[in-house]
Amino acid sequence: MAAPLNLHDDRLFPAEPSVRGIARALYGEVRDLPILSPHGHTDPEWFATDAPFSNAAELLLQPDHYLYRMLYSQGVSLQALGVPAHGAPSEVEPREAWRLLAANMHLFRGTPSAMWMDHVFAEVFGFTQRLAPDTADDYFDRIGDALATDAYRPRALFERFNIELLATTEGPHEDLVHHRALRDSGWAGRVVTAYRPDAVIDVEDERFGPAMEAFAGLTGQDVHDWKGYLQAHRIRRAAFARLGATSTDHGHPTAATADLSSAEAEALFRRVIKGGASPAEAELFRAQMLTEMARMSLDDGLVMQIHPGSFRNHNRLLFEGFGRDKGADIPTPTDYVRALRPLLNRFGDDPRLSVIVFTLDETAYSRELAPLAGHYPCLKLGPAWWFHDSPEGMRRFREQTTETAGFYNTVGFNDDTRAFLSIPARHDVARRVDCAFLARLVAEHRLSIDDAREVAVDLAYNLPKRAYKL
Amino acid sequence: MAAPLNLHDDRLFPAEPSVRGIARALYGEVRDLPILSPHGHTDPEWFATDAPFSNAAELLLQPDHYLYRMLYSQGVSLQALGVPAHGAPSEVEPREAWRLLAANMHLFRGTPSAMWMDHVFAEVFGFTQRLAPDTADDYFDRIGDALATDAYRPRALFERFNIELLATTEGPHEDLVHHRALRDSGWAGRVVTAYRPDAVIDVEDERFGPAMEAFAGLTGQDVHDWKGYLQAHRIRRAAFARLGATSTDHGHPTAATADLSSAEAEALFRRVIKGGASPAEAELFRAQMLTEMARMSLDDGLVMQIHPGSFRNHNRLLFEGFGRDKGADIPTPTDYVRALRPLLNRFGDDPRLSVIVFTLDETAYSRELAPLAGHYPCLKLGPAWWFHDSPEGMRRFREQTTETAGFYNTVGFNDDTRAFLSIPARHDVARRVDCAFLARLVAEHRLSIDDAREVAVDLAYNLPKRAYKL
Amino acid sequence: MAAPLNLHDDRLFPAEPSVRGIARALYGEVRDLPILSPHGHTDPEWFATDAPFSNAAELLLQPDHYLYRMLYSQGVSLQALGVPAHGAPSEVEPREAWRLLAANMHLFRGTPSAMWMDHVFAEVFGFTQRLAPDTADDYFDRIGDALATDAYRPRALFERFNIELLATTEGPHEDLVHHRALRDSGWAGRVVTAYRPDAVIDVEDERFGPAMEAFAGLTGQDVHDWKGYLQAHRIRRAAFARLGATSTDHGHPTAATADLSSAEAEALFRRVIKGGASPAEAELFRAQMLTEMARMSLDDGLVMQIHPGSFRNHNRLLFEGFGRDKGADIPTPTDYVRALRPLLNRFGDDPRLSVIVFTLDETAYSRELAPLAGHYPCLKLGPAWWFHDSPEGMRRFREQTTETAGFYNTVGFNDDTRAFLSIPARHDVARRVDCAFLARLVAEHRLSIDDAREVAVDLAYNLPKRAYKL
Repeated sequence: MAAPLNLHDDRLFPAEPSVRGIARALYGEVRDLPILSPHGHTDPEWFATDAPFSNAAELLLQPDHYLYRMLYSQGVSLQALGVPAHGAPSEVEPREAWRLLAANMHLFRGTPSAMWMDHVFAEVFGFTQRLAPDTADDYFDRIGDALATDAYRPRALFERFNIELLATTEGPHEDLVHHRALRDSGWAGRVVTAYRPDAVIDVEDERFGPAMEAFAGLTGQDVHDWKGYLQAHRIRRAAFARLGATSTDHGHPTAATADLSSAEAEALFRRVIKGGASPAEAELFRAQMLTEMARMSLDDGLVMQIHPGSFRNHNRLLFEGFGRDKGADIPTPTDYVRALRPLLNRFGDDPRLSVIVFTLDETAYSRELAPLAGHYPCLKLGPAWWFHDSPEGMRRFREQTTETAGFYNTVGFNDDTRAFLSIPARHDVARRVDCAFLARLVAEHRLSIDDAREVAVDLAYNLPKRAYKL
Repeated sequence: MAAPLNLHDDRLFPAEPSVRGIARALYGEVRDLPILSPHGHTDPEWFATDAPFSNAAELLLQPDHYLYRMLYSQGVSLQALGVPAHGAPSEVEPREAWRLLAANMHLFRGTPSAMWMDHVFAEVFGFTQRLAPDTADDYFDRIGDALATDAYRPRALFERFNIELLATTEGPHEDLVHHRALRDSGWAGRVVTAYRPDAVIDVEDERFGPAMEAFAGLTGQDVHDWKGYLQAHRIRRAAFARLGATSTDHGHPTAATADLSSAEAEALFRRVIKGGASPAEAELFRAQMLTEMARMSLDDGLVMQIHPGSFRNHNRLLFEGFGRDKGADIPTPTDYVRALRPLLNRFGDDPRLSVIVFTLDETAYSRELAPLAGHYPCLKLGPAWWFHDSPEGMRRFREQTTETAGFYNTVGFNDDTRAFLSIPARHDVARRVDCAFLARLVAEHRLSIDDAREVAVDLAYNLPKRAYKL
Repeated sequence: MAAPLNLHDDRLFPAEPSVRGIARALYGEVRDLPILSPHGHTDPEWFATDAPFSNAAELLLQPDHYLYRMLYSQGVSLQALGVPAHGAPSEVEPREAWRLLAANMHLFRGTPSAMWMDHVFAEVFGFTQRLAPDTADDYFDRIGDALATDAYRPRALFERFNIELLATTEGPHEDLVHHRALRDSGWAGRVVTAYRPDAVIDVEDERFGPAMEAFAGLTGQDVHDWKGYLQAHRIRRAAFARLGATSTDHGHPTAATADLSSAEAEALFRRVIKGGASPAEAELFRAQMLTEMARMSLDDGLVMQIHPGSFRNHNRLLFEGFGRDKGADIPTPTDYVRALRPLLNRFGDDPRLSVIVFTLDETAYSRELAPLAGHYPCLKLGPAWWFHDSPEGMRRFREQTTETAGFYNTVGFNDDTRAFLSIPARHDVARRVDCAFLARLVAEHRLSIDDAREVAVDLAYNLPKRAYKL
């Protein structure tokens, strides 16, 4: 029989009573602050159309690679889970897919996915028993019923979640139709875009050709000419900014930057644009483009985010059968010290520039990222990311960066999610873990309680607001 | 004067009373479960002949490189400790060697060796004072006396230790005489072998030439022909399986795998087999053979273990003077993401295959191994290994793998030891550390107590049983 | 208004009452032990002349790159802070620089700098309110007044700090005038030098040319001849030893060592000395010189320290504007296993040699350094260094090295500082963190309280005394 579902008030706080008491007090200062979500992957169409969500499997399971990758690792096929192949809708009965999740909930013990799901089930839908084989159908039915009501439409949930700002991510080749519709809709919710130009920068990306065509079409520029190409970026950055964007985002395989002369850059562009670039040329072009983006940021004020170090589409068969972003991206060792130096030596001392760096390689926290961010005026550290967006991951981030970079070279939390309903859960975990960390410092007399209160609020609200210029 | 020797009931549990209480309760569920030891290096001859062990130094000190490497690091010579050089018996008086250990016990403060020794001394031999210069002779005498009795013969200890299964490790060039004797002896204890073909795969291994000769002799195959070589592996794998083996084991310098065409593989084999292979060819051949082993595992069902990343025989003088496995192997940074991809892209999605991966490079836990094991159906994570088979090492393993791979992509504990008497001590440490980890999750309301109970039993018993097909 | 400034008696001890009690008891054994500071960067002129220090900014802020790098990272210019450019005195009003520090104290929350400053303010100067904008002037005035008194002269503070020995660091090209003056002064305080030959070994160092000239001048050797060059080292090592040096120190970019034949070494020397050496030749020469230094240590008994892995002068603009050592050195991944092998295979088994290794790459602790130090007789591990000289950094050091290398292959604490007034604060942090670590082992029944007491005293006093032959 399914076990009771309770979210304990003290979850994620240290067990020691005096530390727990401090954590509880600090959390009391931040639990009800509005949510700032300056980096994520929700679909702007949801908020533009405000159409109801469909069913539990399609909303909560099939888009969430955290969930289906774990099931896949234990021999459950993506077909059976109804994960769409190359975007084509699955023919699997959603209720059957949902039952497979319910039958395998034990796999998530000790993972953040378990905490996020329980939070959504309890707080958003009001369940009091855990998801299990014997509650799977009841879950599926009640979630389906709820989603059909007005209170569970995207905008209503956005307001209920107390989200002050939500950023989505689009490419320069996308026309932002939903963001324009949102702007024109009169709805007060702030949903903005962010400029993610990977598809028109990375010539090794399978989307490069069509993306460049659309890029040309949207800007009227000759994007196969270096000056036209740069101008097209400027045009789209401005268009994104008009729809609320305050940041760009760059998901390169490495953190490499370059600082070529403009003649060298143009020559390189010509080589890579005509096709057949070597891996080294493709890498150098990505590297140079980060520096070009920094240069443009000095003009238009957009904050740069660099998200390097993921080996994309590691599983060849899965990529061929299902396409990208199916839970088969794997982190790799990532250098920052040599990689970022060309960009930093060009613009790193200019406090008008703001570059937020993320990592999937935790060894860089204390060795490279905290020392760099604790020195260069332009650099800030993004929060623990992706596989490390978890209680232990966040704790390691604070333990390994704070002593060298302090709190004020970090930027608060990003949820980075496409799972809209889990946004409050994820911010709640981050706030609790930060308060737990601060509580330990207070209990060990390394930080005063008054300072800790201020830091807690800064981490939850003021730092993201300032870092992302919201 | 020697201090009292007590094994505290709460050792290794967190000090905070509520967490300790939970840990104690969880440990109560697993403390008396039988021991499954599916990977280790004890000598099958002990159990085949059941001859009594000799004396304290020869049983507990001279085969244990954890102990003599620490003494050596502080200037004690291996000669004085009676460590055999190239297998030749030492002429040092065992009692003198034992006294040297007793005089240096302070070096082990804070190490797992100290806990294992105390466990053996207290639980196996009943000592109530610690080993120290003034108790050294009493220890030596009483251990010697005990070993002469029937109760301390190998089989009696095996039964007393409640071992359900113990695997040793042999090469395809070894004739398994003791395992055959064991099978024929009628003794109920399950001691099985495991297939470790390094000596006939690694052309850089000093044992390669003679091992290949024995390999040919035992199989009747032309092992210098590619097809004969592969067939010889199939023959020996089947022979190992008949003597209880359920797994193979591969201790390569790196985790590199390759997926050559069969023509390429054959051509490579011809180059390396004739001698004078370049390091790159030797490496590529090892890499290809992991994929060949995986292919055979799909046929015969043997579970693969990969133990990469040790720089063997780092100390040249010591290697020349004493031979291999003398405590001078040193871990190196180890890549898994690119290294395992050829094998994974060939067979990684087939849930019939089972590959258990270990590491000496803890940075791979959260960055590479947990993300890989949390995705590929064939991959599971072996426990914290060798230098990391320790309370802090095990804690890091759980903290850094659980949130991404969960508990169910891990395989419970391996003791990996040649120190037979310490097997119960090692499993006890692992059970306690896992219970301590689970207790923290429960105390922080990240896992229910009922789930934790189930996980504790799975980690101690069910997962190794399933993963190793016992 | 400024908050009260209190140093809590239990700071840095774990909050759990039973563990805290043990930590407090252990700390009671070591809190009043004399300070041994065998590695640091204070100015010997202070103690030779015993001239009064000038003012708060010049003493506490402008030489401390931990402080101004953090302010710089948040957009405060080094000019405004009065940091001297290329050694030229700043024209900034010291009081104004001090106010900038006071206005930005929140940046240091959670950092060791905050703890060190509070310790200095409270213990050395007796402040009872924290440094803040409204106390900045009072701080500046009262510190200035104190420094003008005899009680705050360098020698008086040295005695008040209970320093038994303090080592500074000089190069072979420096004439040790202050150390000679100290020796001749009759003052009882032990301030010794250490031999740091980087400037005459690293042909890529901007100081190489002039340093070689001075090296020749001080030794009367032809330092452009290989035999003369080596002889010059021997001469200066002997001169340093006569002024109390017991150690050498080597701050190379990597830990590479080499073991060339003497003909190869001489040929390499000729190539690099004539200018225009390739980076690989410069690196090989540094590598070979570590082995040469080890060879000389076997003769003269000086202990070797190797401090590798810092990317020096990462910020090009800052280096051009202000010079070296301005907070812009960044750690890099550092290999030890292959790098140290040539030296270790030559001299590593000789217990007369003592090599103390440091790292800025914490991933090496459990993977490489503890396994190496737990085996080779000559190797010891230096304490957590530079960015890792912090409570969390020290905790990670103990957690990741103790189980493999024990406590007795480590050498106690080094403060490594040029901030003289913070020396007691830094040693106090180290003693507290070590006692906290030991207390956890005791509370978890992994170490007896009697053993822990002995280890605490060894770490604070006996190990540095023995390792540095003081």
